[in-house]
Amino acid sequence: MEGSLAGRGARSALPRAALEELSTLLGDRLALGLAEREHHGRGESYHPTVPPDAVCYALGTEEVSRIVRICAAHRLAVIPFGGGTSLEGHVSALDGGVCIDLSRMTGIVAVRPQDLDATVQAGVTRHQLNDHLRDTGLFFPVDPGGESTLGGMAATRASGTNAVRYGTMKDNVVSLTAVMADGSVIRTSSRARKSSAGYDLTRLLVGSEGTLGIITELTVRLYGIPESVTASVCAFPSVEAAVATVVEIVQCGIPIARVELLDPRTVRAVNRYSGTTLAEQPTLFMEFHGSPAATAEQMRLVQDLAEANGVLAVESAADADRRNRLWRARHDVHYAIQAMRPNAKVWSTDVCVPISNLPRCIAETQADIEAASFFISTVGHVGDGNFHLGLIVDPTSAAELAEAEALNDRLVRRALALDGTCTGEHGVGSGKIKFMTLEHGPAIGVMQAIKRALDPEGILNPGKVLPGKVLPALEVDP
Amino acid sequence: MEGSLAGRGARSALPRAALEELSTLLGDRLALGLAEREHHGRGESYHPTVPPDAVCYALGTEEVSRIVRICAAHRLAVIPFGGGTSLEGHVSALDGGVCIDLSRMTGIVAVRPQDLDATVQAGVTRHQLNDHLRDTGLFFPVDPGGESTLGGMAATRASGTNAVRYGTMKDNVVSLTAVMADGSVIRTSSRARKSSAGYDLTRLLVGSEGTLGIITELTVRLYGIPESVTASVCAFPSVEAAVATVVEIVQCGIPIARVELLDPRTVRAVNRYSGTTLAEQPTLFMEFHGSPAATAEQMRLVQDLAEANGVLAVESAADADRRNRLWRARHDVHYAIQAMRPNAKVWSTDVCVPISNLPRCIAETQADIEAASFFISTVGHVGDGNFHLGLIVDPTSAAELAEAEALNDRLVRRALALDGTCTGEHGVGSGKIKFMTLEHGPAIGVMQAIKRALDPEGILNPGKVLPGKVLPALEVDP
Repeated sequence: MEGSLAGRGARSALPRAALEELSTLLGDRLALGLAEREHHGRGESYHPTVPPDAVCYALGTEEVSRIVRICAAHRLAVIPFGGGTSLEGHVSALDGGVCIDLSRMTGIVAVRPQDLDATVQAGVTRHQLNDHLRDTGLFFPVDPGGESTLGGMAATRASGTNAVRYGTMKDNVVSLTAVMADGSVIRTSSRARKSSAGYDLTRLLVGSEGTLGIITELTVRLYGIPESVTASVCAFPSVEAAVATVVEIVQCGIPIARVELLDPRTVRAVNRYSGTTLAEQPTLFMEFHGSPAATAEQMRLVQDLAEANGVLAVESAADADRRNRLWRARHDVHYAIQAMRPNAKVWSTDVCVPISNLPRCIAETQADIEAASFFISTVGHVGDGNFHLGLIVDPTSAAELAEAEALNDRLVRRALALDGTCTGEHGVGSGKIKFMTLEHGPAIGVMQAIKRALDPEGILNPGKVLPGKVLPALEVDP
Repeated sequence: MEGSLAGRGARSALPRAALEELSTLLGDRLALGLAEREHHGRGESYHPTVPPDAVCYALGTEEVSRIVRICAAHRLAVIPFGGGTSLEGHVSALDGGVCIDLSRMTGIVAVRPQDLDATVQAGVTRHQLNDHLRDTGLFFPVDPGGESTLGGMAATRASGTNAVRYGTMKDNVVSLTAVMADGSVIRTSSRARKSSAGYDLTRLLVGSEGTLGIITELTVRLYGIPESVTASVCAFPSVEAAVATVVEIVQCGIPIARVELLDPRTVRAVNRYSGTTLAEQPTLFMEFHGSPAATAEQMRLVQDLAEANGVLAVESAADADRRNRLWRARHDVHYAIQAMRPNAKVWSTDVCVPISNLPRCIAETQADIEAASFFISTVGHVGDGNFHLGLIVDPTSAAELAEAEALNDRLVRRALALDGTCTGEHGVGSGKIKFMTLEHGPAIGVMQAIKRALDPEGILNPGKVLPGKVLPALEVDP
């Protein structure tokens, strides 16, 4: 059945020959203990832990290539692992096999201020890169929160709070080095800022979640740290008023750098967790980047729009300390809402719709939120038309999981009917496969054909992204 | 041999059954006359005319699908045709077959000012779209010059003078409708501004030059017309000084909207053709978009940089008439340089390198320009690291074509050694296939596997983009 995991074989331990080859290659960087395997079989969401049969800590592209060659020879599944911050079951070892942990690949290969780019290994985190860049006056903007690695962010086409101004990983990866299913190593493009030389393999691998190749190195775009950064926090009488303000900001073309919605429940959770004292109202966190004159102008325009929508209070935060506390609190929302209930997990929804349809999508979701038997937080990268419900569920309760699934189902169908997507930034993993045919129609057949062509044995992160077991061409209709 | 056209079969007339099916479907929109076929077998460059066996004027996606189904059933090549402005032999019917002319598909399906996007049929030109948008305060920025269609621009990943600020077609196509090799119709994505739902088929088709699918409809991003647009023209003592200024503009992060280099020879050609009276010096045409304060600030910063590089004269053009004449002259460069020699054709090179390598790439090319036996113009979208030599050749002279080919060969190898690309925006067509393996290495095998998977019979624009005849999987090493 589409989206179902039924039919996947039971996990099998690794064959002795494969173990010996991996052990010879990696020594004590091959881990077989259950705790370590279980840690690599889960992300940060409600999905059950499904451990791989072995964990390989790779140090470089060539080593990843050798591991993949061994796995290909033994037809073992290969699952890449970065920061472990996945929300959609990307790292579950559904067919067992080998997890390649890239988090020790933390080399910063080159920073080229003159070209506004940097080349890093896949295990570098955005924090590490930005710390490294501190003295250059440059920064890397994509910011999904958490300790995610740049390789993982590229693999899931991540974005986050800055995307409304700086774009997503799709827009900020210049070139990739990747290991393909047969162990061959490719570089997807040169560092030229634009090229029309053939198929865009960079963008094909970005968002492919380890199912087409394993990203081992990437060149990303850098930006000058803005001369002036200012922030403001606006409390509104209703979610509708807050969202209406955002829609107008975007439609006016104001180049806002961040605009995040938090509903009153989320503000309450943040106050409890982070010790803030924000008014428990629908709230926008906003940030403006530019010259001092430009940020002042942007803030003035936004304040006019907010006032026309009945804003209750506007507080600006020009100093860096206060701003950092604010964004720290925003980034801790995941943990803040999880802390609202002991032993709970967050089931995070992730729809994204054209901005003009955002008010309707959020409004039509209110009844579901009111009726739920568990706490639900609403936060959103609303400038992109993307918002998350955080469903705080007991992962051991079948009833709650069923209720969450039904709610998410209705939400996704609502978003698709509004010309949106089931996932703005978290990716498909195994969690959203069941919506893929609904969202893409016949285009799914094209994706499956690409998967078959690039991974004919289906060893790369099986059971992720695409519905149905992807089999060699002769066994499946194209 | 790689890149060679040897081995392609002689063109064959269409089988009677195919002709009858096409004629029944299209009536007098099926054209078989030689003049019309020859018109569809050439672009605007030096490549010889290779006419298709028939031209089909399609009016919609469904009709394109039916034409492709007929061609697939008879294993006929299918070549899409838009504005006919190709520079790399994209429309040559190397295997004969059927040209699908999409230029009558000029429907503007929807303009959504609230979402800053528009959906159009593939035959809409950027001029038509911008004329249509006139009263909305919005515009579509990508601007390769010429009467190109948006479908053709997407298919070649076109860019042009505005790309330094607004990006290329890669960045400005939201979603595509395409007809695949079996005639099936797909839509590549929703209109959501971001999505992590599966493989990025939009970006895969953008730049695929009709070899993976035929783009029939596209949704593109729109932008607010800037409150203030100002331009300036700077004459420099040397090409080096002009390029150094551009490199500094980019490295300072000044959001310049356009920055175009013309060498003295090109300025002379422009003065002759367009009646301008520009000083025949290395010249930068620049444009600034933003609020009046922002454009004034940008111009001031740029003027400071230009002065530090010894600029000879700075002339600003704030009024729209003078600005439009200037950009009209820039866009007519192709025709201006062609007019320098009767019966000549332009062989336009198209390398693009990381901006820090641009001065070296241009400097090392000077000796070749000086030594050439024909007129060579240098123009560049230098803010992107992209520049064109216009080699004004006699297309009937084997010696000149050989000289041009050798010069281009050296230029491309120079650019690749500087981590650049053989084509920044014109595409590969048949003209640059021979550089693809050199540029991409093993990644070419991945592109070929995708081509085989999506077009197993090889009917879509055969002989373009990829080296070697792409055959079904069993006959070729992956």
